[in-house]
Amino acid sequence: MPAPGSALASTAVTDLIEATAALVAVPSESHHEGALADLVEQRLRAAPHLRVDRVGDNVVARTDLGREQRLVVAGHLDTVPADGNGSPRVDGDVLWGLGSADMKGGLAVMLELATTIAEPAIDVTWVFYAGEEVAAVHNGLRTLLAERPDLVDGDAALLGEPTDGVLEVGCQGSMRLAVTLRGARAHTARPWMGRNALHRAGHLLAALDAYEGRRPVLDGCEYREALQAVFVEGGVAGNVVPDLAVVTLNHRFAPDRTAAEARAHVEQVIALHLEPGDDVEVVDVADAAPPGLHHPLLATLRARNDLDVRAKLGWTDVSRFAAAGIPAANFGPGDSALAHTRDERVERSSLEVVRDALGDLLRHGA
Amino acid sequence: MPAPGSALASTAVTDLIEATAALVAVPSESHHEGALADLVEQRLRAAPHLRVDRVGDNVVARTDLGREQRLVVAGHLDTVPADGNGSPRVDGDVLWGLGSADMKGGLAVMLELATTIAEPAIDVTWVFYAGEEVAAVHNGLRTLLAERPDLVDGDAALLGEPTDGVLEVGCQGSMRLAVTLRGARAHTARPWMGRNALHRAGHLLAALDAYEGRRPVLDGCEYREALQAVFVEGGVAGNVVPDLAVVTLNHRFAPDRTAAEARAHVEQVIALHLEPGDDVEVVDVADAAPPGLHHPLLATLRARNDLDVRAKLGWTDVSRFAAAGIPAANFGPGDSALAHTRDERVERSSLEVVRDALGDLLRHGA
Repeated sequence: MPAPGSALASTAVTDLIEATAALVAVPSESHHEGALADLVEQRLRAAPHLRVDRVGDNVVARTDLGREQRLVVAGHLDTVPADGNGSPRVDGDVLWGLGSADMKGGLAVMLELATTIAEPAIDVTWVFYAGEEVAAVHNGLRTLLAERPDLVDGDAALLGEPTDGVLEVGCQGSMRLAVTLRGARAHTARPWMGRNALHRAGHLLAALDAYEGRRPVLDGCEYREALQAVFVEGGVAGNVVPDLAVVTLNHRFAPDRTAAEARAHVEQVIALHLEPGDDVEVVDVADAAPPGLHHPLLATLRARNDLDVRAKLGWTDVSRFAAAGIPAANFGPGDSALAHTRDERVERSSLEVVRDALGDLLRHGA
Repeated sequence: MPAPGSALASTAVTDLIEATAALVAVPSESHHEGALADLVEQRLRAAPHLRVDRVGDNVVARTDLGREQRLVVAGHLDTVPADGNGSPRVDGDVLWGLGSADMKGGLAVMLELATTIAEPAIDVTWVFYAGEEVAAVHNGLRTLLAERPDLVDGDAALLGEPTDGVLEVGCQGSMRLAVTLRGARAHTARPWMGRNALHRAGHLLAALDAYEGRRPVLDGCEYREALQAVFVEGGVAGNVVPDLAVVTLNHRFAPDRTAAEARAHVEQVIALHLEPGDDVEVVDVADAAPPGLHHPLLATLRARNDLDVRAKLGWTDVSRFAAAGIPAANFGPGDSALAHTRDERVERSSLEVVRDALGDLLRHGA
């Protein structure tokens, strides 16, 4: 234990495992973030160097020091439903429990830095938002960007999603398409009187199995596209040749393509297996975000801390910042592979790596 | 109108269109055949040359003249649910309505011949049974063959399913198989971490699309096998690589194969696309029936009336007679393509062709 008054005192006092455990102990399943938002708001309001605004269950705290650069650091308050892991459990340097990795560990780091660094070298906006784990219509960051863009504006942004201290830049886009293939019904004893739409789907699915996605390198990061069938539906009765097959595709596309270009690509891939009367419908789409590593704040964060960098293959809310013209990256404690699992947990070292790197950026600027 | 007492009197009195309409007017959806069974039983009991037995809603009437040969003529009492066509409508020489083709036209012919030919050249057993349009467990013919085989025994059998006066011999077997293909789940942004079971199913379905069934010729009749996917199920969530695909197949096999041989054939066709851990399960199976045209009663029916003959590709209850060692064929009025449709109907000429041919067989024997 460090001596009272030592340079390490404030760090030593805030045990990030205990701080994260305190946040895990406040349930905040999507649509029920109020109690956690209250706690976060109270903590932030106690710091006189912060201006705090609350919009619904979204809490925004800002320094206003007139610095040349402003960094936005955002994290979501909500979790998926508990799976027998609703209560935090500390075991040495590991905290187990719902949301420990995704992403209350990140929130604990944010609260720690927001309340202890009163005079950062750059201005900072801390965004704690609701509704990330559910449909986009409930997303608090989306709400803020739409209704209060002044509150969340900045020069660059970091999103505290679990990356285990790696800088995961940009994100790939995601598009779901429903492909409807048509046939003609007939009795299965006389199938030549009809046409089996499921057999037609076979050729499409086999083509997907052979699909090799592009692997474009952007800002030195390799993205990797994918095209997967996620649902197939078809069938009328046990003795009827099916006249309809619906194949739902999920396409992940790199940030060098727009959604329109991505759609055109998918249509080209499947064109051989489509006929007049078939349909291709985009069910939903989320744009990709470019890596943004060129921005001095993100470049400095990487360089001064010798961070590993990789392309973010999944879609995250960094895309919302990118769409608002704010370069953004994912950077947080915890392993994303543990998110949404019963075994969700976070390690002390992961929390401290992120705290130290982000703290360094705030203290020294770009 | 023929003069009273003319040779045509009995034919003229019984208008088969009107007789069928009277049966269509008595609803007899599966599981609700009681009222129609009552009516049929009453009509049959009024004929002193018949011995009548009733087992549940199955009615059996027999001559007992000690003839050398006994023909069984069977027809089901039940219909599928009405589709706005529950009431009979006569339009000239056409009767429209639920069950007109499948198979109250056949029942009308059976009742007419059963009650008017008191001294046939062969003994006849008339079987009116319930529960043909639903699961086999409800099938009245199955019940009689199992519980009262003495009532339905004979040298050959005819089933009055709609064949529009063609002798449709034997029937193909039908087997449903559930093929379960396995993969491994992964996030669709990193599908190479898993394996898409639906993509695997694509190769299987494409192989089915290329399948060419055998066309064996038996007793001069060409059968035609088929193998169709009737259902495909698979999918976990819009962002998850599916780890399971279940393809349900329906195989129709000719009477020169047993069910075991048919199953082995299907397994051979799909073997290339199976891997350890996959499953093939026979969901249900119904045996094929050989054509039986060698039997003198069926051969005579064909020859004396110059009937067209073809293989029955669908499965019918003739298979139950065949399994009991009784050669059987399908022979009835009405077009099977109209069965189970809103536009179900039967034409007078079709009713009369069947009545005349069957009446001739009964009067003259083999």
